[in-house]
Amino acid sequence: MEQLKNESETELQNQSEAEMRDEKYMKEALKQAKKAYALEETPIGCVIVHEGKIIARGYNRRNTDKSPLAHAEISAIKKASKKLGDWRLEECTLYVTLEPCQMCAGAIIQSRIPRVVVGCMNPKAGCAGSVLNLLDVQAFNHQAEVKTKVLEEECSLMMKQFFRELRAKQKMKKKSLLSE
Amino acid sequence: MEQLKNESETELQNQSEAEMRDEKYMKEALKQAKKAYALEETPIGCVIVHEGKIIARGYNRRNTDKSPLAHAEISAIKKASKKLGDWRLEECTLYVTLEPCQMCAGAIIQSRIPRVVVGCMNPKAGCAGSVLNLLDVQAFNHQAEVKTKVLEEECSLMMKQFFRELRAKQKMKKKSLLSE
Repeated sequence: MEQLKNESETELQNQSEAEMRDEKYMKEALKQAKKAYALEETPIGCVIVHEGKIIARGYNRRNTDKSPLAHAEISAIKKASKKLGDWRLEECTLYVTLEPCQMCAGAIIQSRIPRVVVGCMNPKAGCAGSVLNLLDVQAFNHQAEVKTKVLEEECSLMMKQFFRELRAKQKMKKKSLLSE
Repeated sequence: MEQLKNESETELQNQSEAEMRDEKYMKEALKQAKKAYALEETPIGCVIVHEGKIIARGYNRRNTDKSPLAHAEISAIKKASKKLGDWRLEECTLYVTLEPCQMCAGAIIQSRIPRVVVGCMNPKAGCAGSVLNLLDVQAFNHQAEVKTKVLEEECSLMMKQFFRELRAKQKMKKKSLLSE
């Protein structure tokens, strides 16, 4: 009985440590998202962790770089591959503040990342469970485990604030155009 | 009656011209695939056409560059965006010798390419109709028209020859290892 109690306590402790670890890295992804925000880009950030260390960071720079590939996840995957000298990122965990799009979910499968941690969901375009789940298609040669809603509120709030400000700016612009 | 005949003749002529154009650009994509072949990479090539001109070329360099992103289509999309100075490739046609994977199909949707021409299909992993059709998901904010099987035999033969040679090389290697 005592042994069972100890085992279940250890399990709980491990669970809570794993949760704290996921939150710690999601905070780092949020820091990246803030860099995108500062450039007036949709605030999405990503980090990739390998053996307990962040080996790559990325944030959305689509308009700044004028490239459809400049998503947070793609930038981070590019850097992680360079760091490890391999296109296979088989022992990595990818943390991203917003559910990946079809291209980024595809890149996760192509790079064989086994675990993905997501901040908030993207009901209109997300491909890790919302519109589709490209991370769990049995016909592909790889699937990734997905954990969602880690620091969901912080991630979601940042997006909401960004779009609120964007709408306000667009309204101001329209007004000033009309008064010219 | 005469007018109808002329109209249908013109239509046929336009159709055949469009087919010839598609074959012409697929030949250019095949030239790119040969570059991958020369590097012992799976021979996949791609070109992107804008206003009747090839504005970007790409070929598979996944092992050479040690990057999961170094697919033919991703390289070509990167170059095309740089050339046009825009992440939107809204007036482009993408030609690729093999049906795109989930990442590349995703990048086509993200870059809003309206038309994709495919050489041969990839029944095990293709995402333009085989495993999935990511180019025609109504829930996404963009869909692309797909034309398949253009110069299918040439594209398919190149793949078959590559994998035949690869198997032969692997057999030789195994033999030499066993005899050591």
